[in-house]
Amino acid sequence: MVIVKVGGGRTIHVDGVAEDLAELGEQALVVHGANAWRDELAHRLGSVRQVLTSASGYESVLSDEATIDLQLMAYAGLRNKRIVEAFSRRGVRAVGLTGLDGGVVRGRRNPGIRSREGSKILLRRDLSGKPTEVNEPLLRMLLQAGYTPVLTVPIADENGCAINSENDDVVALLQGVFRAETVIQLIEAPGLLADAADPDSVVPRLTPAEVAHWEESADGRFKRKLHGISKLLRSAPVRLVIADGRREHPLRSALEGKGTVIQ
Amino acid sequence: MVIVKVGGGRTIHVDGVAEDLAELGEQALVVHGANAWRDELAHRLGSVRQVLTSASGYESVLSDEATIDLQLMAYAGLRNKRIVEAFSRRGVRAVGLTGLDGGVVRGRRNPGIRSREGSKILLRRDLSGKPTEVNEPLLRMLLQAGYTPVLTVPIADENGCAINSENDDVVALLQGVFRAETVIQLIEAPGLLADAADPDSVVPRLTPAEVAHWEESADGRFKRKLHGISKLLRSAPVRLVIADGRREHPLRSALEGKGTVIQ
Repeated sequence: MVIVKVGGGRTIHVDGVAEDLAELGEQALVVHGANAWRDELAHRLGSVRQVLTSASGYESVLSDEATIDLQLMAYAGLRNKRIVEAFSRRGVRAVGLTGLDGGVVRGRRNPGIRSREGSKILLRRDLSGKPTEVNEPLLRMLLQAGYTPVLTVPIADENGCAINSENDDVVALLQGVFRAETVIQLIEAPGLLADAADPDSVVPRLTPAEVAHWEESADGRFKRKLHGISKLLRSAPVRLVIADGRREHPLRSALEGKGTVIQ
Repeated sequence: MVIVKVGGGRTIHVDGVAEDLAELGEQALVVHGANAWRDELAHRLGSVRQVLTSASGYESVLSDEATIDLQLMAYAGLRNKRIVEAFSRRGVRAVGLTGLDGGVVRGRRNPGIRSREGSKILLRRDLSGKPTEVNEPLLRMLLQAGYTPVLTVPIADENGCAINSENDDVVALLQGVFRAETVIQLIEAPGLLADAADPDSVVPRLTPAEVAHWEESADGRFKRKLHGISKLLRSAPVRLVIADGRREHPLRSALEGKGTVIQ
């Protein structure tokens, strides 16, 4: 089995992913983002995204009801179904699900974000949380019947309400349950870059210890990204490939080890 | 089994539907609209809906890529997942699907709309079509595992592309396959009204022949509605209840025969 995380950028070559999946002959779980679609829709609707810096130094997006609605439109609606459409057209029998559907990804709502605002630390109510449980029987049933689940946010909190969650955490949780041989993250870059400004600075191989080391010195979104990778590597032994989603055959290339292989 | 069509208006009491489904102890297929959400979103996005009057006198909404995107946001995203959320919170294990997911509802794209524009009849390209096939094994698998499929548009055309379709046609197709004892249509009125302006004019019982008679004299949206009902009644023998979705217990009341019972 392979778990594929498809990044939320516009230039990810979803048709190529579809072709590769159709040829793969393995079960696959797909988790996708949609931040480009979310941002564009937020812009068109005049909706303002609130980014907080938590007391521990990570950036977090505050999620309220409007955020969840936006997520439902962009992730669960626009992007999820267009991916399902692209997959289906190439013979991959895709079923798109949010965490709400059949409670396929459930979690615990955050008590709130401890946010650094000026010199103060404030607790802000937040409709987001950590995924803690997957509905493994439902996913296995779909996989065994030949379907490819295509998962996205929101997930369900302990009361069944829609909450935002990090896709990286969902992938880590899935990997803890399904123990795929390979997890692939398709992004809009050739891999992890030693120098963010230089696309030729791809780090071809990394050990989990090296990821942890980088995490300490990084900040902002990249720190969060590395944090997600660390969590994934702790969830179960895995070969993680961070690869270019813009290639003609993003998945095939990733499986051949093009990009950053972390093991 | 019961098939429930939940209308796309804001005042349909979805929490009540959820409670009734939880108590029902029968398999259920749910099909829903979302026109209130679609219209509001279209308004916010400044998107203009093109309504054509076909050569045969029915009103049709012309569907282009923007229409499908709007449908993905409003039907597949916002409304589908909020219904799934409401159902799940009351113990109904709902799985929300568009026709694209697992090819659960597939159809044939229209060649175009023969539209009466002034004194001319023009053929307009249209991303919509008639549903012709359901993925019965997928729906049966979900039902047998205790899930309630919650279906909405778009559906997949013969090439797997997203197209718009009438929910009434989807319900008729499902009924042809699943042969539910009762089909319930929950609307924002107490039932079919003899006089649209008078909510006390509910027609308590109708025969299929009477529906056909009404259809001839009606026009616009109502003509289309009656046309859908006729089609449903032809698809398989059924008790059809058109009932008030705004009640505290919309489904229970409908099953008790409150509204318009057509048989």
